[in-house]
Amino acid sequence: MEGQATPEQRWIPWMRRALQLAALAEGRTSPNPLVGAVVLDSEGCLVGEGFHARAGLPHAEPGALKQAGKAARGGTIVVTLEPCCHQGRTPPCTEAILAAGIERVVVALTDPDPRVAGGGLQRLRDAGLEVISGILASEAAYQNRAFMHRVRTGRSWGVLKWAMSLDGRTALPNGASQWISGPSARAWVHQLRARCDAVIVGGGTVRADDPLLTSRGHRSPEPLRVVLSRSLDLPLSAQLWQQAIAPTLVAHAAPEDREMETQVNNLAALQAKGVELQKLDPCEPEHLLRELARRGCNRVLWECGPGLASAALQQGCVQEITAVIAPKLLGGELARTPLGDLGLTAMDQALGLNCEPGLSLGQDLLMQGQLSPFSAPN
Amino acid sequence: MEGQATPEQRWIPWMRRALQLAALAEGRTSPNPLVGAVVLDSEGCLVGEGFHARAGLPHAEPGALKQAGKAARGGTIVVTLEPCCHQGRTPPCTEAILAAGIERVVVALTDPDPRVAGGGLQRLRDAGLEVISGILASEAAYQNRAFMHRVRTGRSWGVLKWAMSLDGRTALPNGASQWISGPSARAWVHQLRARCDAVIVGGGTVRADDPLLTSRGHRSPEPLRVVLSRSLDLPLSAQLWQQAIAPTLVAHAAPEDREMETQVNNLAALQAKGVELQKLDPCEPEHLLRELARRGCNRVLWECGPGLASAALQQGCVQEITAVIAPKLLGGELARTPLGDLGLTAMDQALGLNCEPGLSLGQDLLMQGQLSPFSAPN
Repeated sequence: MEGQATPEQRWIPWMRRALQLAALAEGRTSPNPLVGAVVLDSEGCLVGEGFHARAGLPHAEPGALKQAGKAARGGTIVVTLEPCCHQGRTPPCTEAILAAGIERVVVALTDPDPRVAGGGLQRLRDAGLEVISGILASEAAYQNRAFMHRVRTGRSWGVLKWAMSLDGRTALPNGASQWISGPSARAWVHQLRARCDAVIVGGGTVRADDPLLTSRGHRSPEPLRVVLSRSLDLPLSAQLWQQAIAPTLVAHAAPEDREMETQVNNLAALQAKGVELQKLDPCEPEHLLRELARRGCNRVLWECGPGLASAALQQGCVQEITAVIAPKLLGGELARTPLGDLGLTAMDQALGLNCEPGLSLGQDLLMQGQLSPFSAPN
Repeated sequence: MEGQATPEQRWIPWMRRALQLAALAEGRTSPNPLVGAVVLDSEGCLVGEGFHARAGLPHAEPGALKQAGKAARGGTIVVTLEPCCHQGRTPPCTEAILAAGIERVVVALTDPDPRVAGGGLQRLRDAGLEVISGILASEAAYQNRAFMHRVRTGRSWGVLKWAMSLDGRTALPNGASQWISGPSARAWVHQLRARCDAVIVGGGTVRADDPLLTSRGHRSPEPLRVVLSRSLDLPLSAQLWQQAIAPTLVAHAAPEDREMETQVNNLAALQAKGVELQKLDPCEPEHLLRELARRGCNRVLWECGPGLASAALQQGCVQEITAVIAPKLLGGELARTPLGDLGLTAMDQALGLNCEPGLSLGQDLLMQGQLSPFSAPN
């Protein structure tokens, strides 16, 4: 049967195009998923394209249908995610599809959002439309892995990023760390931040590096800058408190866990600068990601030191690793490394990664991978 | 002048072939260089090929000339290194070239060996032959970098190898390190050893890992296994003492630097097993590489722990780094890392590497590079 396409295979190129359209808004749709759609007329010719650009703006389907106009009648809509059937900030897409006279709906995935969860496809089937689902389902699930993870677990999808020398150091023994990686890699990190809804550091990173943590304008608004600081022992002169550049949230422990006097002073001073404060109880990575998910963050970036990074890993708050490896040697028994203790005692407990092939960023090498599901910490 | 070749460019494809031939004996010619040669008849047709297979066996030129026979008369020999003009273990190649009636000699490099050093080319010019040199010179110098380094510096060329997790660990906090890398990477390391004349570890690696350090038959004889152990505090049951598998050399400090009693016992016990002992004064990486160069080792592989690796780096005994990076996380504040202290206090002192693009070895990634000349330790 070589060379003979199954009926479903004819939708693959159109679904690929819909995925491309969806990707145009990467990092900008939270709390919503990425969605792209194409509309074909009754002859199978492309007559409309659309994607969801930002929460509050129209979904992908109405845009594509509007572009198609009357040509949609009797046609097909190919969409990366099940059309919604509920009234949210925008009207249900199922009704727009029906109103346009579409006769066939092709989707990659059902929407895990409990307000949809198959109900959209059912509504369309009930109305007599042909519904085909599962086209490029794994590609679509990969594209929306952060959204799906948030909806399923109630926590944001965590990406842990570090830059290290080839001998695995993230600083010199004296703490100097600017810069390990080169300009291309640093520019790439700005773009990575633009694809995230929040960037998280611990108090130690604020004290040591005084980072800015913005996308340098690649994303507007800038991602939320988050400091997880149990103790609130933070320098009041840090760049992160400049709220005109980007918003900052400081997550801290309940007062009884803190040394009272300094911390109350810091709390008041930060509030005066317009920094948002959020008490977490307990003040742990897991609870931070629940809070950020509640605020609609699909994907967050951990740019923290080894202690917080290990805690985030151990609490299941890291799904993806992004390591920039610079072709240099730093050495140093006491030099900082990417991770603190993970409590492993045998090699088969090592956390495995499904790494993509290395990517060159100037002189540096980028290694990216998802933590293997079976070896993720419990 | 696009598309028009300079007269010298016509030799490039033939020199490339000669370099390919030379590479066939990689790791097996020490103390000699790699050399390949092709012979073209007076019409420019290939009539002979040869390479130097092993010290004591004929050089590349006589083999290629013998294959060419009478067709060499009036022809050209293209050879990767200047033909020798001295009687060594084999007769001078210049005389074989003259006897064959060759009219043109094309070489990549002059031989840095003080017994040759331009004398070979001069002998050929004096005899009336056309001599062209410098064709693919940098490729040829790269191929023979270990030989050239040994001849110029009196020390072997050092390759430092390690296998680490993506978070820069070479063991778990409890010392477990088997295996960080996968089977493909470990097989590749056996082949790397086959391209080296000696493999060096410190006493700590013998005590911790009891390694075999052979090429698993990829090289015959196996590379010399070397233990640099100032103290001679070594387990007498180690696999390295099995001399039927491969020869082992233990380099140790002078007796006054050692705790006498145990060490004298160990010395006698190792000698009884047939292990060769070599006193080094001082017992440092630099002096070891002088000793190994004296023994004819062009290229040696450091497979040691962080302390010895740092000392080797700081003493200029490492020219090349080979790092296998496994896609897993180990963590551990106290877990072993590739290097100990290098004494750096500012980022611009970092030792730079000219890395080749990463190579996949199964799931693992291989990063290889030479230390940049300008940032190498003094």
